[in-house]
Amino acid sequence: MVGLLKGIAASDGIAFAKAYRLLEPDLTVEKRTESDTAAEVKRFRAALKKSETELEVIKEKARRDLGDDKAAIFEAHLLVLNDPELTGPIEEKIKSDSVNVEFALEETANMFIGMFEAMENEYMKERAADIKDVTKRILAALLGVELPAPALIAEEVVVVAEDLTPSMTAQLNREFVKGFTTDIGGRTSHSAIMARSLEIPAVVGTKNATSDIQNGDLIIIDGLQGEVHINPTEEVASEYKKRSEAYQQQRLEWAKLVNEQTVTADGHHVELAANIGTHEDLKGVKANGGEGIGLYRTEFLYMGRDSLPTEEEQFTAYKAVLEGMEGKPVVVRTLDIGGDKELPYLNLPHEMNPFLGFRAIRLCLEEQDIFRTQLRALLRASVHGNLKIMFPMIATVNEFREAKAVLLEERAKLESEGTAVSENIELGIMVEIPSTAVIADLFAKEVDFFSIGTNDLIQYTMAADRMNERVSYLYQPYNPSILRLVKMVIEAAHKEGKWAGMCGEMAGDELAIPLLLGLGLDEFSMSATSILKARAQLKHLSKSDMEALAAEAITLSTAEEVVERVQASTQKII
Amino acid sequence: MVGLLKGIAASDGIAFAKAYRLLEPDLTVEKRTESDTAAEVKRFRAALKKSETELEVIKEKARRDLGDDKAAIFEAHLLVLNDPELTGPIEEKIKSDSVNVEFALEETANMFIGMFEAMENEYMKERAADIKDVTKRILAALLGVELPAPALIAEEVVVVAEDLTPSMTAQLNREFVKGFTTDIGGRTSHSAIMARSLEIPAVVGTKNATSDIQNGDLIIIDGLQGEVHINPTEEVASEYKKRSEAYQQQRLEWAKLVNEQTVTADGHHVELAANIGTHEDLKGVKANGGEGIGLYRTEFLYMGRDSLPTEEEQFTAYKAVLEGMEGKPVVVRTLDIGGDKELPYLNLPHEMNPFLGFRAIRLCLEEQDIFRTQLRALLRASVHGNLKIMFPMIATVNEFREAKAVLLEERAKLESEGTAVSENIELGIMVEIPSTAVIADLFAKEVDFFSIGTNDLIQYTMAADRMNERVSYLYQPYNPSILRLVKMVIEAAHKEGKWAGMCGEMAGDELAIPLLLGLGLDEFSMSATSILKARAQLKHLSKSDMEALAAEAITLSTAEEVVERVQASTQKII
Repeated sequence: MVGLLKGIAASDGIAFAKAYRLLEPDLTVEKRTESDTAAEVKRFRAALKKSETELEVIKEKARRDLGDDKAAIFEAHLLVLNDPELTGPIEEKIKSDSVNVEFALEETANMFIGMFEAMENEYMKERAADIKDVTKRILAALLGVELPAPALIAEEVVVVAEDLTPSMTAQLNREFVKGFTTDIGGRTSHSAIMARSLEIPAVVGTKNATSDIQNGDLIIIDGLQGEVHINPTEEVASEYKKRSEAYQQQRLEWAKLVNEQTVTADGHHVELAANIGTHEDLKGVKANGGEGIGLYRTEFLYMGRDSLPTEEEQFTAYKAVLEGMEGKPVVVRTLDIGGDKELPYLNLPHEMNPFLGFRAIRLCLEEQDIFRTQLRALLRASVHGNLKIMFPMIATVNEFREAKAVLLEERAKLESEGTAVSENIELGIMVEIPSTAVIADLFAKEVDFFSIGTNDLIQYTMAADRMNERVSYLYQPYNPSILRLVKMVIEAAHKEGKWAGMCGEMAGDELAIPLLLGLGLDEFSMSATSILKARAQLKHLSKSDMEALAAEAITLSTAEEVVERVQASTQKII
Repeated sequence: MVGLLKGIAASDGIAFAKAYRLLEPDLTVEKRTESDTAAEVKRFRAALKKSETELEVIKEKARRDLGDDKAAIFEAHLLVLNDPELTGPIEEKIKSDSVNVEFALEETANMFIGMFEAMENEYMKERAADIKDVTKRILAALLGVELPAPALIAEEVVVVAEDLTPSMTAQLNREFVKGFTTDIGGRTSHSAIMARSLEIPAVVGTKNATSDIQNGDLIIIDGLQGEVHINPTEEVASEYKKRSEAYQQQRLEWAKLVNEQTVTADGHHVELAANIGTHEDLKGVKANGGEGIGLYRTEFLYMGRDSLPTEEEQFTAYKAVLEGMEGKPVVVRTLDIGGDKELPYLNLPHEMNPFLGFRAIRLCLEEQDIFRTQLRALLRASVHGNLKIMFPMIATVNEFREAKAVLLEERAKLESEGTAVSENIELGIMVEIPSTAVIADLFAKEVDFFSIGTNDLIQYTMAADRMNERVSYLYQPYNPSILRLVKMVIEAAHKEGKWAGMCGEMAGDELAIPLLLGLGLDEFSMSATSILKARAQLKHLSKSDMEALAAEAITLSTAEEVVERVQASTQKII
């Protein structure tokens, strides 16, 4: 079909490529009584044969294109497929219960999956995952539907999906993915954040992408306007060629701002900083003219390994970032783990509501060995640059006081050992819990700065899990309640002569920037790839106009009214 | 031992009785290689025999004391115990793997439990629970530890536990339980709330109750001071006899207030209402002089059944409560289900953070059939009393507008059908989400009243699951941030000439009442059993003094400072 879908512009840019549908097919199974069980067994064996052939092909293709590593998973699938301990009981069940093969397959597989998953053993849990995958493949063969194989993409494509989960994106061959479009999701969904960090255009929340787009359709993703064109006419295509060129041109214009300061139309300076996860990200920060690091997430140092990183490993990592930034400010967030971000080797108990659980500073104040090691590494690295330390998930003044006391103890120990520590380390907190925003005036007397973490602040203020699609309509950065809390925090900081930054997704959002400028935000920390565009936007905004806009916005009743008001009074930047 | 434990006074009163330890024993199993597998099999069979004897005794005792119903569960356990499909594989595993019986038992049982739990079938899931219970009993026999049997308590006891979970309390024979004490928990933990509703004294959070108290020790629970005496001296015991009599005397004094209005020392009237779950609770409301129902939780109508209640069933229930209250106000909260409160027949998807999920008004606005049926029943019942309707979990003004529109549609339909509907139904919202408190001024223009739900408001504002023991230190009703939000809500209401109530645990808390009075709260809704004490307390408080106290409290930095300040400036009521 030829068509146009409208959605949410989640990542800038324009992409042209063929559609690749990344869909979980419907593998719903019904139970049927089958008197001719021999025929069912025959169907089962045929499906096994078909699956085996598919897996052999995929395995070879994976080995050739992607290497032995990636091929190994399919080798494991072939072993499961040929395991009589699995296939035997299925055939038996068909015969003894006189049921259809799909039902016998699913019941038997679920039994094994339940069994393996119940075991406290990583290897066995992986076997459960293998059985799941193989069962899907056999079911697909039986039901005559096709399974996607995203690992094998080998030409330029636009990925079309209901939603892109982390496990799906891990399978993608990123080199060939030129854009995304999804049925659901918003600007802060996983797929949107990933698209921005990969710098590929994306339109999310189109509702109908998977129903309207077929494999091989030519797709234009307009990540600027939030539009998706399906098999566009010549005319539309050539129009988009022009727009794409104009966008590239504009990016070149923005690139000229790389070494400039960020100054508004009325001469007010704000700082545009970057969020990073590792030292590797500094290249991008420099290429995009980051004026500092507003959020260095230290979790990556702790992930993908079997034990805690040593003080020395951490010191090396922090030093590299501080030196790499050559005296520009680097705000390091201490460990924000627990809750949904798990470290298997810490053996944290399962929680019913991990987002409201034992995480970040709560965990660090309890497991002080972990915390002290990190603080020592940071203090030692402090002489190599402009370090600022901030604590995540602070909810009460007492928590801040306790964390600060631990920091001062470690500083004293280092100094008594003769280790040099910088005298000018600012100490701040993330403001991501409503209580902290509401009593920001009390905190402002004790901290050196605030950094507002909007991703969490919004989800707690609205009491809506930002990963839960059913309540995603409540993830409202522009809700007047959020704007008021941001205002409280900034005003509290300024009253005590402190500064206030923001390191959530909101800080880089074109629609939010006018409001945040108007509310007085001092530092905007965002994906490096958003910095130049934000700088260009801010150059055209007048702070005093935006103050009036923000003052009005917080009196409006709904997020929708706020958005309308901002759109009416500011120009779209691209 | 003779001793004294200090904890949190969770439920008023003084109890004397023998200790009953309700503890899950340590059944941790280690894997050992055993060459003499015949000896292990012998140990296994001996443990089976011992477990069988125990179960027979328990079953008979249960049948005699509690009836056939309660005995049936032990009959089921006996069947599992004698099932060769379970015991056979265990003996085989001992022999084939040369392992100790405990390990073989646990591994085999876990396999079956995993298998049954994986099945989409309630009956099979119950079998998994039976296997768990029986495995525990056999393990206890093997390890030589005793299992508690709370269902069989048949003399007056004080229950001593780490914590009392809902499943434990369901097993208790309540007639004989005269008090509780636990190692962990606070005033809003399950055990504390239950103790208050049963009107038995409780002291929670003693840290050491289970380590210091042995079965059969004589215990005094002082639920007024938060003290637990273990094997008290004559002197202490006779002192407590006096105190207990004085407390009974005081209760008689309070009972005289049953028909009085609630008026402060300086002549200000507030309303003391009750929280109820069913029509049955009205007896207690009247006996305790409730001036209205501040929260009628309608969830009970939907629970413990296989399908939704009909409009007629609901109408009958609402009418009974409205008529029972004889014109006094009845605030009915519409369905607050989803999240942690599940209705199996609704088949709601599992959520990662149910407290931040698809629940209450979020669900009702989506599943409008459910919502409309309830609203129709309420509207029809409205002519039988003084009905006020409130919506739970409202986060945005749009949600309120949508819910109100649905209500108006159903009203119009009923009226066009010729059904009478009261003209004076006030329409309000629960304020239990931080966003709603922050923009209460915007809501106040559209609603008739607010009822602050502190249990949820505190957990969202502090971003701490109130059921999660590891972050329970963050459940801080007296945190200045909570007091400020409460203040915002009350002031917003009054500015528009509306009223503000509270129906969380905080409303009945002796320490909070002075602050809430000072903040201007109009209606306090609590457990019926707390009303008379609160009325006595309020009679001695001056509103203008409390206004000064509250104004100071919100400028303090921590919850601890607030508590100290309140204690210093008010007298303990008992």
